[in-house]
Amino acid sequence: MEKCNHGSGSGTLYVVGTGPGSVKNMTLAASEVLAKAEVIIGYKTYLELIPEFLAGKEVISSEMMKEVDRCRTALETAASGKQVALVSGGDPGIYAMAGLVFEMAREAAYDCPIEIIPGLAAINSCAARLGAPLMHDFAAISLSDLLTPWEVIEKRLEAVAQADFVTAIYNPRSKRRTEQIVRAQQIFLTCRDPKTPVGIVTAATRDNEKIVITTLDHMCDQEIGMQSTVIIGNSQTFTWKDLMITPRGYDKKYQL
Amino acid sequence: MEKCNHGSGSGTLYVVGTGPGSVKNMTLAASEVLAKAEVIIGYKTYLELIPEFLAGKEVISSEMMKEVDRCRTALETAASGKQVALVSGGDPGIYAMAGLVFEMAREAAYDCPIEIIPGLAAINSCAARLGAPLMHDFAAISLSDLLTPWEVIEKRLEAVAQADFVTAIYNPRSKRRTEQIVRAQQIFLTCRDPKTPVGIVTAATRDNEKIVITTLDHMCDQEIGMQSTVIIGNSQTFTWKDLMITPRGYDKKYQL
Repeated sequence: MEKCNHGSGSGTLYVVGTGPGSVKNMTLAASEVLAKAEVIIGYKTYLELIPEFLAGKEVISSEMMKEVDRCRTALETAASGKQVALVSGGDPGIYAMAGLVFEMAREAAYDCPIEIIPGLAAINSCAARLGAPLMHDFAAISLSDLLTPWEVIEKRLEAVAQADFVTAIYNPRSKRRTEQIVRAQQIFLTCRDPKTPVGIVTAATRDNEKIVITTLDHMCDQEIGMQSTVIIGNSQTFTWKDLMITPRGYDKKYQL
Repeated sequence: MEKCNHGSGSGTLYVVGTGPGSVKNMTLAASEVLAKAEVIIGYKTYLELIPEFLAGKEVISSEMMKEVDRCRTALETAASGKQVALVSGGDPGIYAMAGLVFEMAREAAYDCPIEIIPGLAAINSCAARLGAPLMHDFAAISLSDLLTPWEVIEKRLEAVAQADFVTAIYNPRSKRRTEQIVRAQQIFLTCRDPKTPVGIVTAATRDNEKIVITTLDHMCDQEIGMQSTVIIGNSQTFTWKDLMITPRGYDKKYQL
């Protein structure tokens, strides 16, 4: 990989979180960086959500599963002296692109500046759409065993189920992986009430958004896909109207 | 509490996350809601961070620890027919105001619309400032035992330490609570390498921001206060330059 071209004005790589989808849910900092970038690189589904930022730019869009190639292109383009925005859906720091960018930069002894511009992750936006399900100690676990051995994932599910964490499940089900979410449900059922509220948010804030509040024993009967995040409540989580709420504990100390 | 005054145009309560502090890190949706609100209510430290939104508004600021009173005022003001923004630092859904608002609304059989506008939580903004420390399965735990028994907190620390979660610690230390963070460190030391990277971010993105990357065995020697978030890496977390990075596992599958 090229060394940073400090000579002709240093390039910078911005890894920009665009949040759940709509431009309204992006930060001002993120939209400023996209506006000033010379080159915008990203997975095409995410780029299609932000057409207003692409006009007049060099745009490099790529397919899913091509993260390594996408990062390499972003690093090399910034090294050539350009201002580059690598777009990451959600928050680049949560199951997204920030880590891989730094891993590859280290590998290549890369020396251009890299800046992470955070965005709303699925946990932030899905929680807001469900009411207030996180509110107390919580864990985030991805069920994808593409890069993590399933034994590690299962051990983590057991640990947080037993310690009564609200649990946000990323990558719950794909066409190929259909059994992991069933196994996660079984693990939680060994130590949590079958009627524990579970929220499933698919495509949060997008046109095809779908929100379901169900219970632990029925969660796998619901439609769960690649764009879904599943949030399993803790022992105190309740539903009210069409909302899912985990209390912080104020009611034990104050008159509400 | 008054019933919602549907007659004179219904009031709405927006619970608005302002993110870590600077207006740049707020979403467009949050700034739009603040701009159109008639009444803005919040803890005064958070309101002082957004002076540009307060001009010409009815502003009700309150002291810390007055969350219950603040929520009651917000609910009642919206019920009287006004557009109210209750400001929450960070993300209202993560250790902030969203849950209490719904708990109190349920208690009062409140029927005005309530909408949560998510913001960047400390986990999002602190992770971005440190590099990419979350990137894999992680847990968030508050060490405040004001509303949660310490035994529950300790059990949760043990569970996530043993299952190798990256762990974000909220409310790590206050003037009154100084021993909990030491106990958390001891728990992690029983099952994680003493040289595990630990990031401490204080006042992320604000003028007095302070970022420290240290190791598990030395984390308690650092300045940790009310505005700090502590992120303890997992067994794979490494440091590079002045960054803290948790790999996702790409290096086992791809040539980086």
